Amino acid sequence: MEKSFEYEQLWRFTKKVFASIGSGEEHAALAATGLLRADLRGIDSHGIARLTGYVRLWDAGRANTRPDIKLVHETPSTGVVDGDKGLGLVVAPFAMDLAIGKAKNVGSGWIAVRNSNHFGIAAQHAMKALDEEMIGIVMTNASALVSPTFSIERLLGTNPICVAIPAGNEPPFVADMATTTAANGKLEILQRKNQEAPQGWIQDKEGKISTNPHELKSGGALLPLGGDFEHGSHKGYALGAIVDIFSGVLSGANYGPWVPPFPAFIPVPENMPGKGIGHFFGAMRIDAFRESYAFKKDMDQWLKRFRNANPVKGFEKVLVPGDPERFMETDRMKNGIPLMGSVVDELNKLADRFKIPAPGL
Amino acid sequence: MEKSFEYEQLWRFTKKVFASIGSGEEHAALAATGLLRADLRGIDSHGIARLTGYVRLWDAGRANTRPDIKLVHETPSTGVVDGDKGLGLVVAPFAMDLAIGKAKNVGSGWIAVRNSNHFGIAAQHAMKALDEEMIGIVMTNASALVSPTFSIERLLGTNPICVAIPAGNEPPFVADMATTTAANGKLEILQRKNQEAPQGWIQDKEGKISTNPHELKSGGALLPLGGDFEHGSHKGYALGAIVDIFSGVLSGANYGPWVPPFPAFIPVPENMPGKGIGHFFGAMRIDAFRESYAFKKDMDQWLKRFRNANPVKGFEKVLVPGDPERFMETDRMKNGIPLMGSVVDELNKLADRFKIPAPGL
Repeated sequence: MEKSFEYEQLWRFTKKVFASIGSGEEHAALAATGLLRADLRGIDSHGIARLTGYVRLWDAGRANTRPDIKLVHETPSTGVVDGDKGLGLVVAPFAMDLAIGKAKNVGSGWIAVRNSNHFGIAAQHAMKALDEEMIGIVMTNASALVSPTFSIERLLGTNPICVAIPAGNEPPFVADMATTTAANGKLEILQRKNQEAPQGWIQDKEGKISTNPHELKSGGALLPLGGDFEHGSHKGYALGAIVDIFSGVLSGANYGPWVPPFPAFIPVPENMPGKGIGHFFGAMRIDAFRESYAFKKDMDQWLKRFRNANPVKGFEKVLVPGDPERFMETDRMKNGIPLMGSVVDELNKLADRFKIPAPGL
Repeated sequence: MEKSFEYEQLWRFTKKVFASIGSGEEHAALAATGLLRADLRGIDSHGIARLTGYVRLWDAGRANTRPDIKLVHETPSTGVVDGDKGLGLVVAPFAMDLAIGKAKNVGSGWIAVRNSNHFGIAAQHAMKALDEEMIGIVMTNASALVSPTFSIERLLGTNPICVAIPAGNEPPFVADMATTTAANGKLEILQRKNQEAPQGWIQDKEGKISTNPHELKSGGALLPLGGDFEHGSHKGYALGAIVDIFSGVLSGANYGPWVPPFPAFIPVPENMPGKGIGHFFGAMRIDAFRESYAFKKDMDQWLKRFRNANPVKGFEKVLVPGDPERFMETDRMKNGIPLMGSVVDELNKLADRFKIPAPGL
């Protein structure tokens, strides 16, 4: 049973839950806004459905809701932040703000982050740059679910890349993508419906293409964008690896198979070489390259040309990255956010546990 | 008929050809080294097989062999270079050196380039950063052969991304990839052999999946990495778009369907909004993030873990991006570079025209 909630209702509830596990006023608000941005943009797998997961990380002592987030190393255009085991939803805005500040000073800013946790959707952090007339770039590693081309081992996370680019009058370009053929959230939908996955999404434990959506439970793996070698999976593998190295190795976080998992019931890997999970944030000022008006004029022309491209027969129009999420955000802010019954049940349990009003009350 | 040549033989010949079309001593040497790096690394489509193409661009007045390459805008970490219609093989090293210089000063350097031409393989430029203990990042746009997801129009080039990352004792990570399912060079091989292309590489003029390798001649298009929407082609499309915007829009070069083609016999698009083709170069100093020894230790562990991963049965080992090209470079430097008979014929024609010894003589 699906039920719809107003954004404000869910925001107040989420903020109270974060406050209940120890987040201060400001951090609880920041985390609630960050988490729900996923629901607004239609990335339901990364939104309030994960709230219980964050609480469990805290229960397990793996998330610190009173973090002392610090810039531990820097140059005029770069730096490393230690998140002190904080919620990624709080650590990420700190780091993105630093990147933006450096871009204001010297044209661009690049911050690698260690000792963090899951930060929600990448797009929300990258999009902060848009308001400053900057390009925003965000990456994060995640626990290993993906096999490199030709391997049966899971060595990479779904490791998303987001790039947000401002424009003049046209809505901006916002690409936010897992570096796998399909994000894990899409596979989870098929698992719930017990539907077959398309070929090229997953392999079984022996490395054979599989369409069983439950394959990961028996040693299978998600596949890098491309699916197999003939279709360029070595490129998806390379992209996921770049995200892992920028986020994990450059920062001193964990990387590859050593990235700690989000579900608190899964034990952390042995002999972890770094601290927590890693992110990478970048900001480039438009006018550090060209006069702002000239860039915007060309960017508007770019966006119009692609949005008005001739579609394949049967398709209404050609989209620019970020368009579907923008439409969704407008719709859900106005008409509410639908939640599955199982998610509502979990939220009600959190309300009971923390003695706060259930969402919608 | 294939024939093998020593690298030095081809280098001397190539340098003389560039000198014959007006390049000065230093530029001719730089262009020869750049062009042949593709042959050494096994990317035959981008090497000496294109030499005649560069000459034709010069014949058509579309390449300037005496360019006044200039930094026209800058901040401490960013800048824009105008290539003055120069050969990309000469413009790119100038821009990459600037990026490296800025990284030395402020941690990272980012240079967008306009008014350039084809620059050979991206990897050679990105790999310059490795010697400086920096990460190198290189992109370029190219004339439109690729359709966005759901479109029948060709609006993007094969727009490659290269990222080169140094290590300690292990050979470095060098990913250099077109943002399409298959690079155009791979399709050209199938065209010569008249072999079918795998599904997911190309579409026909109506946007239907096709396996006819000649489809581009009748209005078809290459497909973004992923192939179709179900397999993530919207991600490949987004990647190609990011490369186009960073290279073209940020620099003031042409972009999208307005990027001028490499073959001089194809007319340039009408109403070009910018100058020439665009590139984007980045360099990040490792020690601008972490102490160099700590990064190298972790990077070596990363590389060893992936190189020693369990392979799928039937495959010998798991590769790291750049491994196949490195093996090839060692082999061809030692054993020579094989060229197809048709390429040798073209080189001999250049020798006749410019009254220089044919390669190998």
